Order: sequence, then C-alpha cells, then structure tokens
Amino acid sequence: MDTSVSTRPTAAVLEGARGASVTEQDRLAASTDRSGYVSPSLPDGVVFAESADDVVAAVKLAAAHRAPLVPRGAGTGLAAGAAAKSGEVVLDVSRMDRILRIDPLEQLAVVQPGVLNADLNAAAAEHGLFYAPDPASTAICSIGGNVATNAGGMRCAKYGVTREAVLALQVVLADGRVLRTGRETIKGVTGYDLNALITGSEGTLGVVVEATLRLRPMPVATATVAAFFPDFATAAAAASAVIAARVQPSLLELIDGQTLEAIDMAMGTDYRSKGGAFMLAQTDGYGAYLEQDVLIEAIRPYASSFEKATDAEHANELITARREAIPSLEKLGRVSIGDIGVPRSKLADVAVGLDEISAATGVRIFSVVHASDGNLHPMLVLDPEDSVTEGPAKQALGEMFHLAKRLGGTLTGEHGVGILKRDWLLPELGEVSLDVQRTIKNALDPDGILNPGKGI
Amino acid sequence: MDTSVSTRPTAAVLEGARGASVTEQDRLAASTDRSGYVSPSLPDGVVFAESADDVVAAVKLAAAHRAPLVPRGAGTGLAAGAAAKSGEVVLDVSRMDRILRIDPLEQLAVVQPGVLNADLNAAAAEHGLFYAPDPASTAICSIGGNVATNAGGMRCAKYGVTREAVLALQVVLADGRVLRTGRETIKGVTGYDLNALITGSEGTLGVVVEATLRLRPMPVATATVAAFFPDFATAAAAASAVIAARVQPSLLELIDGQTLEAIDMAMGTDYRSKGGAFMLAQTDGYGAYLEQDVLIEAIRPYASSFEKATDAEHANELITARREAIPSLEKLGRVSIGDIGVPRSKLADVAVGLDEISAATGVRIFSVVHASDGNLHPMLVLDPEDSVTEGPAKQALGEMFHLAKRLGGTLTGEHGVGILKRDWLLPELGEVSLDVQRTIKNALDPDGILNPGKGI
Repeated sequence: MDTSVSTRPTAAVLEGARGASVTEQDRLAASTDRSGYVSPSLPDGVVFAESADDVVAAVKLAAAHRAPLVPRGAGTGLAAGAAAKSGEVVLDVSRMDRILRIDPLEQLAVVQPGVLNADLNAAAAEHGLFYAPDPASTAICSIGGNVATNAGGMRCAKYGVTREAVLALQVVLADGRVLRTGRETIKGVTGYDLNALITGSEGTLGVVVEATLRLRPMPVATATVAAFFPDFATAAAAASAVIAARVQPSLLELIDGQTLEAIDMAMGTDYRSKGGAFMLAQTDGYGAYLEQDVLIEAIRPYASSFEKATDAEHANELITARREAIPSLEKLGRVSIGDIGVPRSKLADVAVGLDEISAATGVRIFSVVHASDGNLHPMLVLDPEDSVTEGPAKQALGEMFHLAKRLGGTLTGEHGVGILKRDWLLPELGEVSLDVQRTIKNALDPDGILNPGKGI
Repeated sequence: MDTSVSTRPTAAVLEGARGASVTEQDRLAASTDRSGYVSPSLPDGVVFAESADDVVAAVKLAAAHRAPLVPRGAGTGLAAGAAAKSGEVVLDVSRMDRILRIDPLEQLAVVQPGVLNADLNAAAAEHGLFYAPDPASTAICSIGGNVATNAGGMRCAKYGVTREAVLALQVVLADGRVLRTGRETIKGVTGYDLNALITGSEGTLGVVVEATLRLRPMPVATATVAAFFPDFATAAAAASAVIAARVQPSLLELIDGQTLEAIDMAMGTDYRSKGGAFMLAQTDGYGAYLEQDVLIEAIRPYASSFEKATDAEHANELITARREAIPSLEKLGRVSIGDIGVPRSKLADVAVGLDEISAATGVRIFSVVHASDGNLHPMLVLDPEDSVTEGPAKQALGEMFHLAKRLGGTLTGEHGVGILKRDWLLPELGEVSLDVQRTIKNALDPDGILNPGKGI
C-alpha cells in the first residue's frame, strides 16, 4: 500500500478485510463507471467480497474506523454512483454472483448481488419465466446495481421497475448489522416498506447482499412492429396516440434520426434512410396480435412506413438496434447519458427543447426514449477530452433538467443521481423532501460512511 | 369539553383547531373502526379538517403541545389503526373528499384523502380508466386510508397494490411541514422512495392530504368464470394449478363452504348447495377469453362444476357475493378479520392449519382468499360480547400468525398492523428491522405525536 495512505482510516479496512486489493489497475477501474465521469483521484483500494460475511466484516471495519465505503456491482452505472476517489474504499460485490434458488411455483428467484441481469433472465427462461426489469445494459449490469438504482428498462411500463420486482432483500447496514426487508409473499404490509426505501438508495443506506425477486410467466405471444416517421416530433405524437388508444405496449421505444445514423454506422444497418425517427413497439400476452392491430391503427396516421416482425429472429434484430444505441454512440465520442422523465404527452415538447439546448450549448444530443413511461435518454456526445461535469456538458445537463421540470417532469427516471446530478436535487425535491431524506440517511448512517456524496 | 381533560395537551388542540368536536357521538365513533376493536376509553375530541391548511394547523398545535394525534379517514380499517382513546385527538380528513383533477391523457387522478375508492373509480370510468386497488370495502373506504394501509384488493395480483398506484403525495409531517413525495411521471428515482415509505405507514409518519394516483385503461374485455369444488383443499389445489399454468388472472378468489352458507343466508342465494368451496376467476384484456380457456383447463381436474358468466350483470352478481362475505358474516356475530399472506402454493396447508386452530380455540373461522397472491382473510366470528384482543380470539389470531410464519408467510397482507397485530411484529420482522423502523419513526416524529402505539 502507498505509505501516503497508510495513516488514513481506509488503511485499517484494507489491511483487515478479506479480498482487499490496492493495485493501481483495480483502483483505476473503481474510479469510474459507464457515465463518462472519472474521479479526480483514485480510491485507496478495493475489497472484493465473496460472501455476505465478507461484506459484514468490511463494513464493521469501516464503521470502526469511520472509513468511507463505496459499494460497487458491475460498474455499469450511468450517474457515477459507484465512482470512488482518494480517501475511500470500494466494496465490490461482483464476485457474489450466484443464483441461489429459482422457485418456479412461487415464481421468484433468490440471487446474490453480483448476478448479471441477463444471467438471471436466462436461468428464469428455463422455467418459462422472466425477470421484468431490463436495462439496455442487461448483458453487463448486475442485480445489486439494479436494486441500488431502482433500474428500469424497456418493458417497465407494463411490468414495473425494479422496486416492483423486489420481494425481499438482505442488506448490510452502516453498523454491520444485517437487515432483512420484505418477504417471499406477493403482498405484505407488516411495518414500513423497507424494500422500497433501500431500492434506489444508491448504496447510501446499506449494501445489498441478497435479493429475492419476483419472476413472471413469459408471455405466450409477443407481437413486434417497427415504424418510421419523418421526424422525432411526429414519432412522439404517434407514441401519445398509442397511450390515448389505451393499449398497454410491453415495449414502446423511440430513436431519433441522428441516433439511427450512429447505429447504422456501427452496425452496418440501414435505418436512417427509412425515416427521421424510429418506433419499436411490442404487445404481448394472449391478445398480443389483437392489441397490435389497435396500436397500428393509432400510429398509422403518423407513420411513413411500418413493418411487423415476421418471426422472433426479426424481432430480436430490431431490439438489438435499440440495445446498441449507446455502444454505437460511444464510438463517436465520450457519451454522457441523460435520463429525464416527463408526462407522457410531453415528448414532442422535449424534442423541441433538446434541439434548443443543443443549439445553445453546442453539444450534440442524441435521443432514445422509453415512450410509454415518458422516460427519455438524451445522450450528449462529447470530445473524448471533454469533462462530463463541467463546461458545455454540465450546462446542457442543467438545461435538460430545467426543461423536464418545466414540463412537470424529473431529473432522472431510472439511472439515479450519483455524482452527476446532485446539483439539481434541491430544485427538484424541495427543501422539505431533501431534509426528510437527509434525516433518514443520518439516522441510519450517522457517521456517513456509506457512499458519501452520492444520491442524496 | 369535559373539565377532566381541560388540562391535557389535547385541550389546546381542541380549543385552537378549526372543526373541533367534543360531542360524545363523534368521540364514540372515533374510538373504533371496522376491526371489531373498541378502545377502552373515548378520545378527547375530533378535529374535522376541511383543507390541508386545517390539517397543518391542527398538527402544529399538536406538535407545540405534544398532543397525540390519530389520523382518520373513512374509519373502515380492519386493524384498529384509527381507533383512538383518551388523551388523544382524532384528526378526521373524511370531509376532504374532492377529486381535484383527472387527466385522461396522462392517466392519473389527483384527489383529497377523503375521496371514497368507489367514487374515484366512477369518475375514472367516465374516461375509460380505472383505479386498480379495490378493497372489498370499495364503496365505503377512502383513499387516505387506502394509502395509510397500502390497501390491496381483488385485482392486485395483476395490477398491483396501492403502493404501485401512488405517483405523488402531499403529506403533513409531525412538525407541520408539508412534504411532497414522488412526481407525476410514471418513473422517477430522484432521492429515496418516500411515496413507498409513507404508503402503508398507518399514519405514523405523516397525514396524507393529497394523492396523485395512477389510473389504467379499462380492459377491453373481461371473462368471468365461477367454479365449485368439493372442499377448500381441492379449491386451493386448483388455484395453485392456475398459477402453475402461468396465466395471470385479474381476479382469483376463493370462498370456503361455511362462508358460502353465511352469504346464502344473508343474500338469499344458493351457493352452498353447489359445493364446499367456490372460486371466482377473471381474466381480462385483448386475450381475455383465450386466457380463460387455459385457466379452465387448469381447474377442470379439480372442479365439481363451473359456469362462465354470460354477461356483465351475471359477472357482477358473482362478484357481489364475494363483496358481501364480510357483511354476511357480521350478521352472525362480531367479526375479526385475519389477513395472513403465504406463498401461493401453500393455500391448502393453510386450510388444514385453520381447521386445527378452530378446533383448538373453539373459534369459528370462515375464509375468503385472494388466491393469486396467497393472501387469506380467515374471519373469526365471535359472540357480540367477546373481545377481539383477548381470550380465544387473540389465541386464534396468534396461532394464525404462527401458521403463516411457519409456511414462509406474513402477519398481514393488506390490512395493516394497527393495534390488533402489534404483538407479532417482532417475531415477523426481527430485531434489526424493527429497530430500523423505529429509528426512522423517531427521526421523523421525535415526540411521537402521530398515531402512537399503532403500526410499528
């Protein structure tokens, strides 16, 4: 260990904890995530926990020495919630990656936090079940991080976000005690809803070491349609028409024209030539095709063209385009991903506002949208050397927040606050709410050792 | 006011608050609810708030004088969560009963807490929408109470409980500040999930003065089938077969034979002669009838007979039977309603266990069951003079809890803890969880003025 840090509180943790590493490589990796943010300094070390006992031991050491701990899962966060710096120890749970149980009769799974979202889905599929929350990063993101951010995804409007899927948690508190929240039953109201309090708390209240998650029966049928529109505003109007038609798509995604270009460049596809905006819509269940007919009638007045997926492979190809949007943009520069939410009828207004922000700041903004829940991901594409927390990027993020707020919306629909969005917490939440949140934080972590400076 | 209470802290509240009443009639009504519990003494008075400002003023007075406040909605609670006693002031919000806004495009409603569940549904229906949580008491229970207890109902397994329907709340905190939780967007993760913390907190953290609720499109079709079985265990096996068939009923209710008898006696119907247990199942959406076919195939091996509802009126008749179960039993004696939840495959085990408890305690136990989420309402029917908190009733409730716990279940699925179930909080939650909950309570209500002795 660097002698420079040996007298810090973190030294006791790194000396005492099982699985501690102080290699530069591990510290470098833990100083960032997929948000584009890089800490100005490296964390003092990383503890790779392999069991709940390892986590308890590390937290107890940290508590005894008041050493700041930054919980970390797969490191795919988009708000720098797991990016650590000097004076902090990272508590990495990615090696706790076992699916402990799948109960097909009760339709639930018990998993460790390092299990990848896609791996859980693959295991559930063997029983005809699926785990509903499906971040675009499903292949690389972990359940622990999903819980920490209350992750959403494409099929959330129909099946709910992570909070709706969490039945029970085991959480190591700031003093090392193990809290069990929730239960294995579908319903239950004994006591406060601590499942929900922990879900989305970005590692500031405890470290999740086990999660019991609700699975759902795979739909018997899924109908997929892709549509092209002259421009984003028209596509947004079509999405509003879908909601107004009172169908419940299981997936309703929009991609703007310049993002299509980026996908085409990266994937060798040819979407952009077909239109200036793209919609991908799925309906599922016993009435999937009947519901699709209603959906198509709703978008027909707006669409330049549409095609129904002919089979599962074709449908999967279309979804892959959406999943590859972020990686495709990452080939163009450093990407900082916005995550605003607005009332569902306001998507076209957001599109106009984003164009204005791009013009005013000089930052290129690409958009993909979960249209059925009004959640947009405006992606800033910056030069590789540009900061995501200063200058035009920060200005654009701030303007995006004010745009969302003006339209009755929110700073972050599903990615979390992390470091990147703290500046806008107070204007969104107001003083009373922020005070209540900090009161809860202080009550449960009085020394502030868990992920300090993140989330709230 | 009684001179005996004029020196109490409550006196200042009752003298200073708008809408205060100290009539015996009002105090008597506020000493109980629909749980069968009656407080050993009367509360000192009732403040009938007509606005959020009235609530703020009353809470500020209570805070200044450390006077205990018991928030109350429609008074239809089933756990004595709103039953008040001497030394307490009741803060009644039932007159705050306006639907402030229905937004059909965003599919949400903004309501005051005294709005009745059925009235909200009637207003939503004008827009082709519905409010999903549907307690059996829909006609008489209020949204404020629904939020306070995180109320469920029959269609929750498909559409979620109150927590899943709450988008935003305005809550008067113990110090009189107004907290705004949540937002009008479907998704949003800025800060901790205070919506969920308040929902189900039984008035111990704040008084809800406004709720923004998610509405859903009314299904285009609903298919209803009723089935009879030789006995409850067979009906329970059929319900498990429905879950295993991976259909998603919007309603899956069981009623045992002796409850059918009580319904027949009260309603003049003739259900009991058709079988020793009854199942009511609905599927809905574009595939309602296809899904019903699969459901019927699943229950066919178990059922003595079944009949599909021929039209909406027929379906409604069958649902009315279910809704009248509690009123029918109330004609037989004093009813205390259990609310245990178990893993969905354990319903038959619960039936056996309840028979044993009835035999051991001499208490008659009647059961209605939300089978698709494993939530049972075993109803104790007592002599009118019997206590619900002592003697055989308490013994039976305790045994029911231990039965649920042994099967991996919970004390209360949707009614709350109130006064009646406090004894089993610790064995269900464990010391760490209870300590965390009390830490939160103490942090937000340090003087303990909000609904003391209830919930946690």
